[in-house]
Amino acid sequence: MIAAVVTGNIWSSRRIDGLPNGALLRVEALESGDRFIAFDVLGSGVGEHVLVAQGSVASNWFPGTPPPVDALVIGSIDRDATPEVPPNSGL
Amino acid sequence: MIAAVVTGNIWSSRRIDGLPNGALLRVEALESGDRFIAFDVLGSGVGEHVLVAQGSVASNWFPGTPPPVDALVIGSIDRDATPEVPPNSGL
Amino acid sequence: MIAAVVTGNIWSSRRIDGLPNGALLRVEALESGDRFIAFDVLGSGVGEHVLVAQGSVASNWFPGTPPPVDALVIGSIDRDATPEVPPNSGL
Amino acid sequence: MIAAVVTGNIWSSRRIDGLPNGALLRVEALESGDRFIAFDVLGSGVGEHVLVAQGSVASNWFPGTPPPVDALVIGSIDRDATPEVPPNSGL
Amino acid sequence: MIAAVVTGNIWSSRRIDGLPNGALLRVEALESGDRFIAFDVLGSGVGEHVLVAQGSVASNWFPGTPPPVDALVIGSIDRDATPEVPPNSGL
Repeated sequence: MIAAVVTGNIWSSRRIDGLPNGALLRVEALESGDRFIAFDVLGSGVGEHVLVAQGSVASNWFPGTPPPVDALVIGSIDRDATPEVPPNSGL
Repeated sequence: MIAAVVTGNIWSSRRIDGLPNGALLRVEALESGDRFIAFDVLGSGVGEHVLVAQGSVASNWFPGTPPPVDALVIGSIDRDATPEVPPNSGL
Repeated sequence: MIAAVVTGNIWSSRRIDGLPNGALLRVEALESGDRFIAFDVLGSGVGEHVLVAQGSVASNWFPGTPPPVDALVIGSIDRDATPEVPPNSGL
Repeated sequence: MIAAVVTGNIWSSRRIDGLPNGALLRVEALESGDRFIAFDVLGSGVGEHVLVAQGSVASNWFPGTPPPVDALVIGSIDRDATPEVPPNSGL
Repeated sequence: MIAAVVTGNIWSSRRIDGLPNGALLRVEALESGDRFIAFDVLGSGVGEHVLVAQGSVASNWFPGTPPPVDALVIGSIDRDATPEVPPNSGL
């Protein structure tokens, strides 16, 4: 999964059949800076840190016929998370 | 998903069985600049901003036997979308 | 999908069970320059421009048990294709 | 698979349904330096070298309905592993 | 698929259930230099050039329940392969 920050959203009035209800969020990966669009059913807001799953697992989460969705917000990242330990800190 | 702009199309007269009806569009990712080919059933035109799903979810969208398609235009992006908020704007 | 040029082929005498009949082509992505190996059933030749699908959709195209193939030439690209429109041309 | 070092963990109190029990670990790929989040059921600790599988195979490992998990720690890498042979050493 | 050279192997004593019998090889992609771990059932040795399939097709090759394996050596590359033709050689 990728840790990302929500930076906005997009609207798509003309779309193919089969997209479920939910938001299309612009997100930016916190580590790589990659920007992409993720589907969200949690009501995540701009500036929120979220966890995004990518690929067919995003689609298969939905009940019924899998929709053409390749990125899904699976949770928000708690702000009071344990600080990350630098990988070269000797632990 | 990836936000991309349509830059052209390609024609493939000699092809394997199983490709559905639709267009093969050249697209360029708006953020990364990556260029690839996406399948389109919406009649998207050159210059249009579109949302592209990648991987097996593109193939599984089609009814019947999944075709060998790994990128699908799932919608056009509305021009009047909310402006993106810079990720470091303090929100 | 990726537009690529065929640059050669490889031979693999010692291989696992389950690989179908066909050629293993060296291909180079036209845009990124990435080089990889794609399975081909169309008899594509060196120098030919082809369209390559990647991932499980390549495997699932084959009838019967899906083979361990993650890239498949799905068509040749016609030489008389419409010239690509530059993405910043104002269209 | 990717060889990675565990650098921390994250907590996600607000999450979608269907995530199994286990830890969400921050990991850093040893070769590329890429950082991402992997699901762990082995109790791996910070500083431990682990092997991570990515994509739908991570999800399909779980019994029952596949969860929206795209990276899974499948083992720890033994510290007494055979030293790697440089690829240009003539072997 | 990716053409790669075997550079070593790793051992994982503590691992999740479901990994099949076989070796975990360190491999380096010949073109990109990317390094990752591939599962091998062919007994490939250090220095050998191999063909690696990635993603769920690697897992689905195994009979029975698909294991959490996302890269599989599907063959060795014959040393007497046809020399690659440079992509800009005019062919």
